[in-house]
Amino acid sequence: MHTLSKYEIDTPALVIDLDKMDRNIRKMADFFEKHSSNLRPHTKTHKCPILAHKQLQAGARGITCAKLGEAEVMALAGIRDILIANQIVGAQKTARLANLARHCDVMVAVESTDNVAELSSAAGSAGSTIRVLIEVDVGMHRCGVKSAEEALSLAQIILSSPGLEFEGIMGYEGHAVMIPDFEDRQRACIDSMQVLISTKEILEKNGIEVKIVSAGGTGTYNIAGTYPGITEIQGGSYILMDAHYAGVLQDFECALTILTTIISRPNKETAILDAGMKAMTFEFGMPELVGLPGANLSFLSEEHGHVYIEDVDPKAGQKIEVIPSHCCTTINLHDIYYAVRGDRVEGVWPIAARGKFV
Amino acid sequence: MHTLSKYEIDTPALVIDLDKMDRNIRKMADFFEKHSSNLRPHTKTHKCPILAHKQLQAGARGITCAKLGEAEVMALAGIRDILIANQIVGAQKTARLANLARHCDVMVAVESTDNVAELSSAAGSAGSTIRVLIEVDVGMHRCGVKSAEEALSLAQIILSSPGLEFEGIMGYEGHAVMIPDFEDRQRACIDSMQVLISTKEILEKNGIEVKIVSAGGTGTYNIAGTYPGITEIQGGSYILMDAHYAGVLQDFECALTILTTIISRPNKETAILDAGMKAMTFEFGMPELVGLPGANLSFLSEEHGHVYIEDVDPKAGQKIEVIPSHCCTTINLHDIYYAVRGDRVEGVWPIAARGKFV
Repeated sequence: MHTLSKYEIDTPALVIDLDKMDRNIRKMADFFEKHSSNLRPHTKTHKCPILAHKQLQAGARGITCAKLGEAEVMALAGIRDILIANQIVGAQKTARLANLARHCDVMVAVESTDNVAELSSAAGSAGSTIRVLIEVDVGMHRCGVKSAEEALSLAQIILSSPGLEFEGIMGYEGHAVMIPDFEDRQRACIDSMQVLISTKEILEKNGIEVKIVSAGGTGTYNIAGTYPGITEIQGGSYILMDAHYAGVLQDFECALTILTTIISRPNKETAILDAGMKAMTFEFGMPELVGLPGANLSFLSEEHGHVYIEDVDPKAGQKIEVIPSHCCTTINLHDIYYAVRGDRVEGVWPIAARGKFV
Repeated sequence: MHTLSKYEIDTPALVIDLDKMDRNIRKMADFFEKHSSNLRPHTKTHKCPILAHKQLQAGARGITCAKLGEAEVMALAGIRDILIANQIVGAQKTARLANLARHCDVMVAVESTDNVAELSSAAGSAGSTIRVLIEVDVGMHRCGVKSAEEALSLAQIILSSPGLEFEGIMGYEGHAVMIPDFEDRQRACIDSMQVLISTKEILEKNGIEVKIVSAGGTGTYNIAGTYPGITEIQGGSYILMDAHYAGVLQDFECALTILTTIISRPNKETAILDAGMKAMTFEFGMPELVGLPGANLSFLSEEHGHVYIEDVDPKAGQKIEVIPSHCCTTINLHDIYYAVRGDRVEGVWPIAARGKFV
């Protein structure tokens, strides 16, 4: 039987190196086997049920999603323990969430009494139970309650709200995860964890059980993941990584590339790729070329990548791999992964939660 | 019967104001009724067959696509006269193109003898005819032949290649279309049109008929569109527009918004929207808020928009409309349009060519 080779894939295409990805999954799982905290990987990175299942099979205690639409995709793939690490507000979305709670053990972040009231009401209508974590602002200044007192009063309201089950607290130190210097990152992360743990202690002093304390990203997995009292880490990028994160953290391998083709050589210093802004993002810098020494992407138009070349002379038609600078948003542009081991295509996997931001 | 109102749409959602869009289509059609050139709208902007059909019904002579995958979607919707305004290279794609040519009158841009040879061979295998335009580099320095002599020699090869039909030439003055000052834009555009028309004249002097001379974008529709000898304009953005283009050209209305919800008010100066980088792009600047005087988007994270507020006090749960800064790439993040007239949802339309960059 004919086997499709990586270089026969039509381009642009998103390619996973399965050996590298498997090593990333294994390395992170090994870390959490040695520590008391657990991994609840953020699937907003890969958006793909089979990858979530691989993380669970390696020992993760559940998964994290950013959006209700993502959680619905993962629940349909049979995953039960799902944290939506954001607020779900409004009558339509809380009703959807309450319905989803009849099919999996979904958990959601809350920060306000109004939202707690609408969640309780939605759960009542659906006859379901929604698990909740209070989000604490640990220094990112996006969402979350602003003080331990606010958390305490909100927890008491949740405990007396039918249809809701209080599970604990979460905080995301998003301002810390990509600080390049490890010691600076460690300091910022620990400051955030102190906010979170002091909130936990005040709840416990008031007789409230805090089963889950969830935090962390890939950049702080080994800081937040070893901080006393933290029970779960939400790292996502580690599974596939990208050029930007690889500059911050060398623990994991870049397992994701965009396979492209050179479609034109307008002059000696320039090659034009068939992939631009619609196939790769650049908010974290330009994607990085593989195997073209001295060459770099200088500019992206919508469907073209402009490559500056010095010492190499690639031909039109040649395939070039590119490491994305931000895996989460780049994956969001694609409908499928080509899952490749060595040079052999082992699977073509739908990115089922792509675009599920509602 | 209950009618869905715009404000009942769950968010984030991409919304077309149909009255504004209809006026844009009408205004552009009126322009080309008065001039000898024709409109071949670029559907890479909207990626949606029903919108392409509306443009054709208003008088457009055909459509333009950026990619083969887009052309396949449009052909499946019954559209016949399709220009793919880029090079299609490699055995897989040229075979697909030749197959597509059995189902519509597809036309493609070429710039090299190698590519002409593979297109001719693919057309031979499929038993189809592929129409070709020679792309001329008119100053953007991306793709295209670099001189009239090169165009002439390539045209002669095309004319003797079985399976190919030589239709004419094209050039895209992408470096000119967004120059803010009209006179500067006009000067840059005319320089480009001179390159294109002098190429046409050299081909004609050598006895080669040039039926099509295609150029132009929304920003130069009334410059390239009135330049003697130009037969077609490829403008795309005019149909929906965006905040960036509206700063360059005031002839068309912004008909596209992203409907979002405020999910958090962390402090007096900040509101957090439920839409971030996965629902709107910002390579051309931050999207613009509608109806919140003095407020602006200061930062996008993946799923959140951070709004800086001065004199207004919107509540969590309130819906906010946002005008994208770049319509083409923002639309590429969404799966459906909500087509709205006034406040009433008139249709939910799949963005069928979204992500079709292969």
